[in-house]
Amino acid sequence: VRLGGEVVDLRALHEAGALAGLNVPPRALFGARLDGVLALEPAAWEALRARLADLLADGGARVPTGARHRIRAVTLELPFTVADYVDFYASERHAAALGRILRPGGDPLPPNWRHMPLAYHGRSGTVRVTGTPVRRPRGQLPRPDGPVFGPTERLDIEVELGAVIGGPPSDGPLAPADAGERVFGYVLVNDWSARDIQRWEYQPLGPFLGKSFLTSISAWVVPAAALAPHMVPAPAQDPVPLPHLREADRRVPDIALEVELAPAGAPPATIARTNARHLYWTAGQMLAHLTSNGATLAPGDLCASGTISGPGDGEGGSLVELTLDGTRPLRLPDGSQRAFLQDGDTVTIRGVAGEGAAAVHLGEVAGTVVPAG
Amino acid sequence: VRLGGEVVDLRALHEAGALAGLNVPPRALFGARLDGVLALEPAAWEALRARLADLLADGGARVPTGARHRIRAVTLELPFTVADYVDFYASERHAAALGRILRPGGDPLPPNWRHMPLAYHGRSGTVRVTGTPVRRPRGQLPRPDGPVFGPTERLDIEVELGAVIGGPPSDGPLAPADAGERVFGYVLVNDWSARDIQRWEYQPLGPFLGKSFLTSISAWVVPAAALAPHMVPAPAQDPVPLPHLREADRRVPDIALEVELAPAGAPPATIARTNARHLYWTAGQMLAHLTSNGATLAPGDLCASGTISGPGDGEGGSLVELTLDGTRPLRLPDGSQRAFLQDGDTVTIRGVAGEGAAAVHLGEVAGTVVPAG
Repeated sequence: VRLGGEVVDLRALHEAGALAGLNVPPRALFGARLDGVLALEPAAWEALRARLADLLADGGARVPTGARHRIRAVTLELPFTVADYVDFYASERHAAALGRILRPGGDPLPPNWRHMPLAYHGRSGTVRVTGTPVRRPRGQLPRPDGPVFGPTERLDIEVELGAVIGGPPSDGPLAPADAGERVFGYVLVNDWSARDIQRWEYQPLGPFLGKSFLTSISAWVVPAAALAPHMVPAPAQDPVPLPHLREADRRVPDIALEVELAPAGAPPATIARTNARHLYWTAGQMLAHLTSNGATLAPGDLCASGTISGPGDGEGGSLVELTLDGTRPLRLPDGSQRAFLQDGDTVTIRGVAGEGAAAVHLGEVAGTVVPAG
Repeated sequence: VRLGGEVVDLRALHEAGALAGLNVPPRALFGARLDGVLALEPAAWEALRARLADLLADGGARVPTGARHRIRAVTLELPFTVADYVDFYASERHAAALGRILRPGGDPLPPNWRHMPLAYHGRSGTVRVTGTPVRRPRGQLPRPDGPVFGPTERLDIEVELGAVIGGPPSDGPLAPADAGERVFGYVLVNDWSARDIQRWEYQPLGPFLGKSFLTSISAWVVPAAALAPHMVPAPAQDPVPLPHLREADRRVPDIALEVELAPAGAPPATIARTNARHLYWTAGQMLAHLTSNGATLAPGDLCASGTISGPGDGEGGSLVELTLDGTRPLRLPDGSQRAFLQDGDTVTIRGVAGEGAAAVHLGEVAGTVVPAG
């Protein structure tokens, strides 16, 4: 558990007797990952969280010294074992922006977009923790005379929020309100994308190698309960969705998201600001859709929102949007331009809900591009 | 390990000392699933297989009685924990048949199809063992006035062969010949599909809920080594693929596949016969493609071929092909007709390589359709 600039070791808390009386098997707390906690019932998460909130209050004065470590002294690892990774497409601005680029002159949104939270399965085996180098992928790049194989020339980011699922596996379809309660917490996600590979491969089966080389997530899962005070009404929906996707009180998290790009050896520049409150579909609706055919929702599932874009200039959650498919490169403070990422670039996404002392920080997800191997 | 109509317990073999001297940690043999074996190096699989072949020869006369169980006395479970599940689209006849149905008048094959083995990620959490009931999924069904939500009216099968990956996780792109050596063995796959849900949802992100309700696999993983004598030259490729997908000796398994459909209370009828030798892309090419962007191949990954269809009548690996999208229903011996599956129908897929005493049986994958919940 993170406590400001420190890390508190749950095993040491347990051994000091500070977690006594909770209905949580100690083994759930001892793993290198949160898997044991995610497998517990939501009531157990809540009990654990309440105890930790109590222990960690007042700057952690009640935490035994031996259970505290400076964050710089620990190596951050993947916080949980990813079961299935599903990537949604829940931001209207993003879907419409891509539609205008990919299908100029047509309706920017696909005909099914307002009826269901579209999604596809990503590669769970290449979800990695923040800081993992971003090896520029090779792939088939479209050319007038046919494809060639080489390093992507259109390496991009996607700013997303990921819902981390906990609790026993679901059995049958879930209503949005019930499905939302399966969300243990949230991580920041950067779903690195190779736009040229993606464009050539994605018809008719959807994105595959343009995405599967790497998906980065932040090292800390922020409990959904911590974000509860920061849930705000979701955008209105027209048409009203089918009954199984209707939710009485649709809310989305008010998380301000900021994207920094730092060329090698140069200071970082903020290239985008957006907010998770722009998501058209709520987490409950996305998960209700996912389970509507009877598919099981299991602990460790990662359900990402898809790229989160806002309505204004500089609010795109990907370079393909910010640069209009590379036609209007960004100008960086060091004088360089970026249509897509160059080797040596570091991208950092940060998220925060609220302000001041009550702010809930989602940490960061960062990665530096290294040349194709 | 299966021995005719019996099952041999590896743990009992170990305890009887019959596996002594192998460089295989006993713990790898003791799990309820093959996960421990899949994590070993290929040399260890080979050593284990050689020892078992020796022990099980002559009808198993050298197998201690306590290590043998009649197959009817055991419950078959999922043979391995599925890591990532990737479904390819490697049968030319199938891709072209679907193209003619979905894009009438156009080129039946997508423009990228002959350049790469197309694929998408499926839901690993809903891969189940043969015999699991097939609950008819609900979903959004397209109607002229907009979608409605209800049980699928176009429940279908997909006859596939699944490559089960073993060995340490890969690090970087693999050449086809090296990638092919990562295949520990094969299972039969029925990738149940709801064609109406699929058709409405699949643009632009690919299949999702039309597939994710259930994928069934056979209970036994047949080692690739056992199929080695049954590998035959793969269909010629035009154009020659890009260098990273070229393979000197392209081979596919000569596995005869048979599909039976039995209405509730009626005897089964064979509705299709096809063969895995029709696959246009080899397993090595598929896995080379999958890793070409640097994606890791990990033990427990399931890489299915996609529907396997042959060139003749009655050789389609799905009902949508066999019935021309439902327009030419099959006539069954009990007098009924089938455009798509009805509740109570049992579908069984069997596979066998070779004939007579030397035949290698892949067992079966079966499921009975039960009404929507």
